[in-house]
Amino acid sequence: MFIRKASKKIGLSPGTLVYVGETQDQPVRISILNYDAEGHDEMMNAAVSDVLDFASKKALMWVHVNGIHDVSVIDEIGKAFGLHPLVLEDIVNTNHRPKIDDYEEYLFLVLKMPHAENTDQRLEIDHVCLVIGHDYILLFQESRGNVFNTVKERIRKGKGRIQKYGVDYLAYALIDMIVDQYYGVLESIGEEIEQLHETSLEVQDQRLLGRIHDCKHRVMYLRKSIWPFREMISMMLKGESPQIKEYVLVYLQDIYDHVIQIAETIETYRDLLAGIMDVYMTGINNKMNEIMKVLTIISTLFIPLTFMAGVYGMNFKYMPELNWQLSYPLFWGAVILIFFLMLVWFKHKKWL
Amino acid sequence: MFIRKASKKIGLSPGTLVYVGETQDQPVRISILNYDAEGHDEMMNAAVSDVLDFASKKALMWVHVNGIHDVSVIDEIGKAFGLHPLVLEDIVNTNHRPKIDDYEEYLFLVLKMPHAENTDQRLEIDHVCLVIGHDYILLFQESRGNVFNTVKERIRKGKGRIQKYGVDYLAYALIDMIVDQYYGVLESIGEEIEQLHETSLEVQDQRLLGRIHDCKHRVMYLRKSIWPFREMISMMLKGESPQIKEYVLVYLQDIYDHVIQIAETIETYRDLLAGIMDVYMTGINNKMNEIMKVLTIISTLFIPLTFMAGVYGMNFKYMPELNWQLSYPLFWGAVILIFFLMLVWFKHKKWL
Amino acid sequence: MFIRKASKKIGLSPGTLVYVGETQDQPVRISILNYDAEGHDEMMNAAVSDVLDFASKKALMWVHVNGIHDVSVIDEIGKAFGLHPLVLEDIVNTNHRPKIDDYEEYLFLVLKMPHAENTDQRLEIDHVCLVIGHDYILLFQESRGNVFNTVKERIRKGKGRIQKYGVDYLAYALIDMIVDQYYGVLESIGEEIEQLHETSLEVQDQRLLGRIHDCKHRVMYLRKSIWPFREMISMMLKGESPQIKEYVLVYLQDIYDHVIQIAETIETYRDLLAGIMDVYMTGINNKMNEIMKVLTIISTLFIPLTFMAGVYGMNFKYMPELNWQLSYPLFWGAVILIFFLMLVWFKHKKWL
Amino acid sequence: MFIRKASKKIGLSPGTLVYVGETQDQPVRISILNYDAEGHDEMMNAAVSDVLDFASKKALMWVHVNGIHDVSVIDEIGKAFGLHPLVLEDIVNTNHRPKIDDYEEYLFLVLKMPHAENTDQRLEIDHVCLVIGHDYILLFQESRGNVFNTVKERIRKGKGRIQKYGVDYLAYALIDMIVDQYYGVLESIGEEIEQLHETSLEVQDQRLLGRIHDCKHRVMYLRKSIWPFREMISMMLKGESPQIKEYVLVYLQDIYDHVIQIAETIETYRDLLAGIMDVYMTGINNKMNEIMKVLTIISTLFIPLTFMAGVYGMNFKYMPELNWQLSYPLFWGAVILIFFLMLVWFKHKKWL
Amino acid sequence: MFIRKASKKIGLSPGTLVYVGETQDQPVRISILNYDAEGHDEMMNAAVSDVLDFASKKALMWVHVNGIHDVSVIDEIGKAFGLHPLVLEDIVNTNHRPKIDDYEEYLFLVLKMPHAENTDQRLEIDHVCLVIGHDYILLFQESRGNVFNTVKERIRKGKGRIQKYGVDYLAYALIDMIVDQYYGVLESIGEEIEQLHETSLEVQDQRLLGRIHDCKHRVMYLRKSIWPFREMISMMLKGESPQIKEYVLVYLQDIYDHVIQIAETIETYRDLLAGIMDVYMTGINNKMNEIMKVLTIISTLFIPLTFMAGVYGMNFKYMPELNWQLSYPLFWGAVILIFFLMLVWFKHKKWL
Repeated sequence: MFIRKASKKIGLSPGTLVYVGETQDQPVRISILNYDAEGHDEMMNAAVSDVLDFASKKALMWVHVNGIHDVSVIDEIGKAFGLHPLVLEDIVNTNHRPKIDDYEEYLFLVLKMPHAENTDQRLEIDHVCLVIGHDYILLFQESRGNVFNTVKERIRKGKGRIQKYGVDYLAYALIDMIVDQYYGVLESIGEEIEQLHETSLEVQDQRLLGRIHDCKHRVMYLRKSIWPFREMISMMLKGESPQIKEYVLVYLQDIYDHVIQIAETIETYRDLLAGIMDVYMTGINNKMNEIMKVLTIISTLFIPLTFMAGVYGMNFKYMPELNWQLSYPLFWGAVILIFFLMLVWFKHKKWL
Repeated sequence: MFIRKASKKIGLSPGTLVYVGETQDQPVRISILNYDAEGHDEMMNAAVSDVLDFASKKALMWVHVNGIHDVSVIDEIGKAFGLHPLVLEDIVNTNHRPKIDDYEEYLFLVLKMPHAENTDQRLEIDHVCLVIGHDYILLFQESRGNVFNTVKERIRKGKGRIQKYGVDYLAYALIDMIVDQYYGVLESIGEEIEQLHETSLEVQDQRLLGRIHDCKHRVMYLRKSIWPFREMISMMLKGESPQIKEYVLVYLQDIYDHVIQIAETIETYRDLLAGIMDVYMTGINNKMNEIMKVLTIISTLFIPLTFMAGVYGMNFKYMPELNWQLSYPLFWGAVILIFFLMLVWFKHKKWL
Repeated sequence: MFIRKASKKIGLSPGTLVYVGETQDQPVRISILNYDAEGHDEMMNAAVSDVLDFASKKALMWVHVNGIHDVSVIDEIGKAFGLHPLVLEDIVNTNHRPKIDDYEEYLFLVLKMPHAENTDQRLEIDHVCLVIGHDYILLFQESRGNVFNTVKERIRKGKGRIQKYGVDYLAYALIDMIVDQYYGVLESIGEEIEQLHETSLEVQDQRLLGRIHDCKHRVMYLRKSIWPFREMISMMLKGESPQIKEYVLVYLQDIYDHVIQIAETIETYRDLLAGIMDVYMTGINNKMNEIMKVLTIISTLFIPLTFMAGVYGMNFKYMPELNWQLSYPLFWGAVILIFFLMLVWFKHKKWL
Repeated sequence: MFIRKASKKIGLSPGTLVYVGETQDQPVRISILNYDAEGHDEMMNAAVSDVLDFASKKALMWVHVNGIHDVSVIDEIGKAFGLHPLVLEDIVNTNHRPKIDDYEEYLFLVLKMPHAENTDQRLEIDHVCLVIGHDYILLFQESRGNVFNTVKERIRKGKGRIQKYGVDYLAYALIDMIVDQYYGVLESIGEEIEQLHETSLEVQDQRLLGRIHDCKHRVMYLRKSIWPFREMISMMLKGESPQIKEYVLVYLQDIYDHVIQIAETIETYRDLLAGIMDVYMTGINNKMNEIMKVLTIISTLFIPLTFMAGVYGMNFKYMPELNWQLSYPLFWGAVILIFFLMLVWFKHKKWL
Repeated sequence: MFIRKASKKIGLSPGTLVYVGETQDQPVRISILNYDAEGHDEMMNAAVSDVLDFASKKALMWVHVNGIHDVSVIDEIGKAFGLHPLVLEDIVNTNHRPKIDDYEEYLFLVLKMPHAENTDQRLEIDHVCLVIGHDYILLFQESRGNVFNTVKERIRKGKGRIQKYGVDYLAYALIDMIVDQYYGVLESIGEEIEQLHETSLEVQDQRLLGRIHDCKHRVMYLRKSIWPFREMISMMLKGESPQIKEYVLVYLQDIYDHVIQIAETIETYRDLLAGIMDVYMTGINNKMNEIMKVLTIISTLFIPLTFMAGVYGMNFKYMPELNWQLSYPLFWGAVILIFFLMLVWFKHKKWL
């Protein structure tokens, strides 16, 4: 949510590759999937040099780079495919917001993908970059994850549309997969909001407030991530880049609808969270009210009685009541009378 | 309001039909209405195979599918009419937001229809899809309901414009019917808001707050449902799709006016509900104020008097007042005096 | 403010005339004013049949229909002038929002006119419809009122521009009159806001809150009524409809300026009312503060003193102070000392 | 801020001149300044008839009308220069919002000028109208003031660009002067806001709230006055009116920048005032907290002790402690112990 | 944040140079850097006259003017390069907002640069102006600072793209450097916000509120400074000015992305600060609640007991309990019983 390690980059000349994400130990893992309508070849744990060798075998190639912390690997791949230095800079800059750039020979997309699977309440967002060339797709992914395996599986099985169509359809399938992750995250946030809603009606402690704000921040963060998808996909829908063929547009339109729905759901969640804050605040006020009411009832009942007791505890020599035989029962009678009158009055005031 | 069962769909290839609504037991019911200016034929509880047989009899056909939970039925109908797989996917996706898609040979509309008739305070919104072809209309409705019976009745009677005009006029009549449902729901919500307004001036309990928020959520949800109608109808008004003839435009414009009015009413309701929240909050504050005032008045009256009583309850040997004969009456005199001075002061402060 | 009796209309076929306003007893009153640069003929309490007979006498005709609750009268007039059924439906639908429709042969305007003259704080808004033909104007007015008499007077006197120009100038004069009513209403609301502002600095009771909200609702309602005038007049200013001649545009521009000013004033009023709410809320808080301060001062002064008195009211056998001769005066000295120290401390805390 | 005396104008036919500002006694004062690159002629306290006589002497003429309450003078001047009746109506309507109208032969501008010089905290805004003809400028000013004297001085000195250029440059100089007044007013409001900010951290009385709101209203009012300048100058920058030559555009762009800066400063001031309101509100809450804390500490300290004293003030015959010799010192020991334990507990709670 | 010393400028004729920033003692320092692909010449502490002499040596020239408080220096340089008087006026007007003006022969940019390096929490923003000519760049900087030294170093080293490209690339490098400063400042503000967030959960004193508002003002100020960059760079991206060659556009697009990201981060910070305010406010409310709870518990426990003690402290002659032998132990038993019942009740109410 905050800009971090930005200072690393201040004052560097453009095109200098600096990885600003969290430090990671694992090596970068490259896998290559070569396919066309006839079949597919696959290579796991490829070296950078394999990428180009492999390229000639089939019509279409998908290079999946898992891990972007090793800038030298990114640099080599970039040179192999003739990518602009600024593209490489954006690939390794995990702070970069989603965007699309049209470099004529290829489209460059920066995307943000939330991790749907993690069960605790931390939101992790993956930096994913996509280079869509004429007959290849490069997919750079910040952290390891097997989100895109189902897409690979669809290619391997070779039954669906995916093998028959070009890389633009593959790009659609990948973006669709990324957008689908938002649904998963929103579903779990939705459940949490419902839970918060119920809790907020009963409990009023500071921790709940913390959870509400935490949830709000996650929603805000998702919003910031999904919002630029709209203009991104709008731009692709205009169909001006040669990488996007016309038959894919109807599918992109479908993603567009999903993005709009996600954005609307996020707005709804914001409103709901604002409502929960209201309930929470009012709950605190109501509790205060209740406490004050108890204090006031007790004080109002006993303070006058205590005064009365005080009066007859005085040591004046000449107090006729002190010597009356019925004084004490009368005193209790008065106490009980006052007590009941007070209760009636509280009832009338609707305090009881 | 929340995205539900979205996880069912994550990672599936596009065009896979998954029903995400509530599970339902009843069978899907299909009814067919064939008509032209001369007359009409009708078939209730038709099978999917009947649809095409029936088609040749009259110029225009309206197929009404009640229930979308059986994806195989939807699939068959889709194939019979040559609908795009993405259209079928959207028909069974009850989460889908309202939209219009122009597939050249037909227009595809996703609509949301609130149930006006139900009297309790739950808002049910029906997922309704409309496929407007050249000479047929397919209407898919999530739940059974007889909202569209009045339209059928108008065709059966054969007196109005509806039989003479084409399917575009029928589409208008159906959309008009859907938009009319919003009026009904808004009318009942309006009554509820008025009730809440009156209650909020008197009562301040947590349950009222719950009702206010509940009402707000329903209004928000309606807003989300009606908002996309505007662009939908705007698009139809542009008159670019061959399914929409020019003579229908003036009627569509009428719906457009209604949609705008519904949207404005919803905004007004939001403002009114915000005002009721204000009143509720201030009511709580005022009650607190009143309670504090009572406590303060009682305490301020009696605490000094109790002190005085305490003083003359001391056991010092040498306290001259104790032995005076008039001490006790004087004490009471002082008490009454202080009491009245206090009352005057409270009056002056406008606390009484 | 609420949608009322909307349910009357649900499911009816378009063009069915249903009056949804309040029931009224008086008959519909039609008056006809025929005029051109030479002179004028006038007919009060005309029958529907008179309208067409009268039409041929002079170049221009203004038909003023007072009361729209008798749908049969509206229907007859509509047929006489060849109005579209949807136009007639909107004339009798008092819920309809302001709009302009261009039916080529005539312009149809729905307008909302507040009653400036009524002195109590209820806002009544009149549903006024205007049909601007080539050489006639039909004016439909929901309730009786003599707002338009001054325009009639100007025609009768025959001195101004109004007789020389066409019906478009007459239309301008009528709309100008309607817009002028807003000024009157806003002036009286402005005075009320000033009054509320002054009151809010002094009084904090629930009734004031009610008045603030009431005023806010009226402002909101006016806003909803005036807002569509902008696009309405913008559309007329484009000068595309043959009913509007060019020489009228400068006058319409003048109305446009007025509408903008009214809209701005309404925004200012909203801000002012929000400010008054703030003052009101803070007033409540301040009052609470003051009450608490009094309670705290009294309690803090007397509770320790009461404790002291309590101590010397104990019955221990061996309490040396009890037998000292100066104990009692010393006790009072201590009381007075503590009292003054407390007062000094309160002064220091700025509580006094 | 409020619409005033609007009722004077309701129902009048357009072009009727009604002065709606405050009544004024002084006569209208007209001064004429005739100039070109060679030199200048000047006439103070001119009569209306002098205006036209004077016109022929030099190429350019600036007529400055001080006071618009005498509608007959405005009417005569209007006729002399052939101004449209609606222009004259707007000149004397001091309620009119800023605008620009292009009447082909002249440009008509309504402007609002705040008085920078007045030191008390009332905001006075002057209604200033400008008619820019081919070779003349008419300047109508509601109240007397010598703001424009520096411009006159620049013409009299005859050194700057002003004498060499046309009336469009003069118009620029006058508008620039008006915009400059906003800077002065904003500077003094800025100082007031800083003062309010500092005060708000210390004092919390109702009067401060009044001052904050007063300041807010003035800022709002300025905003309403400056906002229309943007579109006004944008329109002039389009360079479509023959009165505005191209060499002036760069100067108008400069004014445009100033207007944007003023608008931005006003937005900043609104935010700052909202912040001050927050601080004020929190200050009230904090003070309440502190008061409650004192009350609670005192009560919590003494109430248990008073109970103890009460116990040993009871008159039971058989209370062994009463006869012990060490009871009284033990009592005091307990009191002091409890006292200190309480203090430690308060410290722990961070109340002290 | 406030408009300052604006009054200095009111009423001056346009093009008059007035420095409105803080008074400074140091002399203006001019340094010249002449370079092309072959090499570079450099002159530190140059006089104004050196600028033109130096110009012929190499193809490109960068004149860096450190300090703008000496208007005569600015004036001379302006004349040497033929700058418009309004440009010079804006260079010395440190209040001026960021903007771009296209004077055909050169582009003029006003920019705002925050000082990233200063460690205390004051935000200093530098007024920086850039004149981009065909083969020269003039850089005017309000305060001394060595931010641009890294760019100079890159030219001196002569390895990167910067020497081979034209002044447009240099302009890009300078603007990029300025934008980078925002990242630094935002990073440190981000850290502060995190700190505030943590503190706000624990502490609730007025000083924290002050810090929150202070932080908010800085964020607002940055927002005001960065916002105009967007349209500025958009305008440069349109590529209409001859100073900007096409190969630079991709780099400018990169800056544009950064600016958008900065703007988004600022919006996020605003939201976070609003959230912290909420937490702070709720913390105050919660503390109040806790204090009230303690007061209520203590009062509610002891007030009834004190009354009981008061009763048996009365001096009635006939009070049978006084003479019972078990009265006193029974009294204590009752006290303890009531005490425990109360505690149970408080537990039930969840107050303990």
